[in-house]
Amino acid sequence: MAGKKVLIVYAHQEPKSFNAALKDTAVQELSVQGCAVTVSDLYAMGFEPRATRSDITGALSSPESFNYGVEAHEAFKRRALASDILAEQRKVQEADLVIFQFPLYWFSVPAIMKGWMDRVLCQGFAFDIPGFYDSGFLKGKLALLSLTTGGVASMYTKAGDSGDFRYFLWPLQHGTLHFCGFKVLAPQISFAPEYSSEEERKSMVASWTQRLKSLWTEEPIQCSPSWYFGQ
Amino acid sequence: MAGKKVLIVYAHQEPKSFNAALKDTAVQELSVQGCAVTVSDLYAMGFEPRATRSDITGALSSPESFNYGVEAHEAFKRRALASDILAEQRKVQEADLVIFQFPLYWFSVPAIMKGWMDRVLCQGFAFDIPGFYDSGFLKGKLALLSLTTGGVASMYTKAGDSGDFRYFLWPLQHGTLHFCGFKVLAPQISFAPEYSSEEERKSMVASWTQRLKSLWTEEPIQCSPSWYFGQ
Repeated sequence: MAGKKVLIVYAHQEPKSFNAALKDTAVQELSVQGCAVTVSDLYAMGFEPRATRSDITGALSSPESFNYGVEAHEAFKRRALASDILAEQRKVQEADLVIFQFPLYWFSVPAIMKGWMDRVLCQGFAFDIPGFYDSGFLKGKLALLSLTTGGVASMYTKAGDSGDFRYFLWPLQHGTLHFCGFKVLAPQISFAPEYSSEEERKSMVASWTQRLKSLWTEEPIQCSPSWYFGQ
Repeated sequence: MAGKKVLIVYAHQEPKSFNAALKDTAVQELSVQGCAVTVSDLYAMGFEPRATRSDITGALSSPESFNYGVEAHEAFKRRALASDILAEQRKVQEADLVIFQFPLYWFSVPAIMKGWMDRVLCQGFAFDIPGFYDSGFLKGKLALLSLTTGGVASMYTKAGDSGDFRYFLWPLQHGTLHFCGFKVLAPQISFAPEYSSEEERKSMVASWTQRLKSLWTEEPIQCSPSWYFGQ
């Protein structure tokens, strides 16, 4: 939708990959709509995933025993976080929608994207205690996971070896995004592109492009156990 | 138990932390039992979490489009993985039990430990297609997650805001460890040490030490949806 700002956090090593094609079509389609699109290409940026002392510039508030969460919170308040974290926080702050584009690694995001979550979504910026879930500081924003799997769709069903795909979304969509206040749109899951024909892959890209055309009219999902576990 | 080999994969930045105390007591108790204990102290090692081209030495099998999973699998077969990955794989191969000691970050492991899983547990080493879940290549080994939480125990119940703690264990225990063939022992969860008194923290360390005394007689959990979701 014209005027909307979108951040795409993207984690794939290869510009010719299927994940890149999904990212590229999102950039193109959203730009055509008049959105301002920013991409954080984590591998190309050499994004640092490790949460360490280096994330805090200047003195620590409790140097006798390093507590990352406490120090990051304090550093956020006194604007003393590392510049790469601040840059990502600015992008999130400006965005109306954040899309995460990644291949599923071990039922989750690749470590480089996990590090983005660990370091960027710090206390004070994304949430506080209290100030989480529906009161998370990123409320009013939308988030969407667009991911590819190694396994075929039938593996990710209640009866399949890997269980319903919604099970593995819980830590990401509920424990992370909802915790920070995001409203979460339905995930875009492209199953097993490596086991698909070129035609099937094109069809998956086309589905995503088509969905993006009416994305702004979608209702977010209900981030509650019943959506994930049918309880 | 005398003669058993244990690998502790440990992810905390601070040697004086509560996570360090849990790791230290495990090293001590298991050593007293006569186990050979190895610790991978990920932050101290500066462990690399990012899955990149650098993980493969020499030429790629498909240089025209980099596919990490495929290249890591090929590199494993021709012994061309980066030396830090090989070193960790040797430790896993020798271990009867792998303990993961970490603070919960976003319902999951910190990025540095996610990177250990992404890079070390590669196809050919930890599993193959077929050759996963009960046929995973690490079958015969035990794994155990020992973690600390930020939130208090009541948050991690079916009625709590964060849902049952078993929900967030699914991607780690089932999707990763069980996939590789590990039998998984019950998790050791130390809730909210930051909100606990010194006495309560000592009691949590003592519980863990006590449990380790009879760990080798424990039955693994049933890694099936019913354990996680009560279905």
